[in-house]
Amino acid sequence: MTHTRERILDTALTLFNERGERNVTTNHIAAELGISPGNLYYHFRNKADIVFELFKRYEARVVEFLSVPTDRELTWWDKMGYFEAILQNMWEARFFHRDPGHLLDQDDALRERYGNFVRLSLDQAMEVYRGLQRSGLLEATEEEIRALLVNTWVLAASWTGFVHSLLPAGERQAALDRSLLEQGIYQLICLEAPYLRGEAREHLEEMKQRYRQAPDTLTLLFTRSSPPDTAESAAPARSGA
Amino acid sequence: MTHTRERILDTALTLFNERGERNVTTNHIAAELGISPGNLYYHFRNKADIVFELFKRYEARVVEFLSVPTDRELTWWDKMGYFEAILQNMWEARFFHRDPGHLLDQDDALRERYGNFVRLSLDQAMEVYRGLQRSGLLEATEEEIRALLVNTWVLAASWTGFVHSLLPAGERQAALDRSLLEQGIYQLICLEAPYLRGEAREHLEEMKQRYRQAPDTLTLLFTRSSPPDTAESAAPARSGA
Repeated sequence: MTHTRERILDTALTLFNERGERNVTTNHIAAELGISPGNLYYHFRNKADIVFELFKRYEARVVEFLSVPTDRELTWWDKMGYFEAILQNMWEARFFHRDPGHLLDQDDALRERYGNFVRLSLDQAMEVYRGLQRSGLLEATEEEIRALLVNTWVLAASWTGFVHSLLPAGERQAALDRSLLEQGIYQLICLEAPYLRGEAREHLEEMKQRYRQAPDTLTLLFTRSSPPDTAESAAPARSGA
Repeated sequence: MTHTRERILDTALTLFNERGERNVTTNHIAAELGISPGNLYYHFRNKADIVFELFKRYEARVVEFLSVPTDRELTWWDKMGYFEAILQNMWEARFFHRDPGHLLDQDDALRERYGNFVRLSLDQAMEVYRGLQRSGLLEATEEEIRALLVNTWVLAASWTGFVHSLLPAGERQAALDRSLLEQGIYQLICLEAPYLRGEAREHLEEMKQRYRQAPDTLTLLFTRSSPPDTAESAAPARSGA
């Protein structure tokens, strides 16, 4: 039944995101749904199969939002829409972004699909940048825009894992705080800032403000002495061996 | 014997880097060295212990190179030195950067140490940026410099994993090509480019050229149709699955 299949995927995604894929078994998923393991195995051969299907869902969403309207110019509001879509996709697939190396090493088919996805989405994102250029929202040479594209991609794909690597041991199973992902969007905006023009530049501060987190949310990232603007701090004493 | 201990670390590092940490056991390391597993266990309780010591070595190198001379101004040549040191450290600890999430999830002590290392090295890198500012090589507001710092850090720490995630299944155990890490340094230079001034700006093209790889090295990253400057390509047909 298609319905059960979808419910398995939804439940697996929730559990993977909350607990980390490594800590969730197919039995956990079946138990959460109140179905038998046999019923789950009727729909999916194993956990890797579920991960693969969830990746396909994620991929379809990214491929969909990375498009440029053909009937009008892009506005800074479209720009916000792209950022919102990136944030939403980082959030919904955070189990994947937390530790892609592990998942790709386990499944050659997923690895191949992921590589193709990266190349395709880089191509599509390039079309978005060209749209922003045509609309006068971004100005950059061919070389600059290509480097910006790759940096944006890597940063967006790596931010979740970076934030996760900073969580203290006692909290690493805790659900990731969405506000830390919002800070990742702020970082993407800062990456693009030097190249923004026109109304995108005029609204730069507004865009930043929407995603910038308060210093007390960012204590994971900076020692107490550094943020937000008292930065004379000497290197702090090292803690423990 | 200290000598054996060092040889174990050296050999483990080589094997981890070549094959991935997950694919190397303490028995592999002992066999490679021609010592008994018992001898290895005399020096290290388990593989996690070896990883932890290797991380401490790596950390010490990063903390050492991220310093600013106190007796003179920084030059663009120092800038090149920082890039070379980043590259060297990415290369030597590539097993770690390939999949940090996996290693941190296995060892709470390493996780704690890593978090402290990130915060400390961000603080130190901030001092380097301030040195570059004082020497007229970089111009940025307090907010810009902080965002640049974080973006540089995340990109440098994530590049190896990103490149690795693009390797086809058949090649994923192959040794990573160093030229792909050099391209990561090129990406870092592009990240900083808008803020460079004085002789750092004058030498920008020279810095880029040193690390920029030829398009045929980058086919992992871009579809055939995109690089280097023929970019009218429509999104290519999806492959497989």
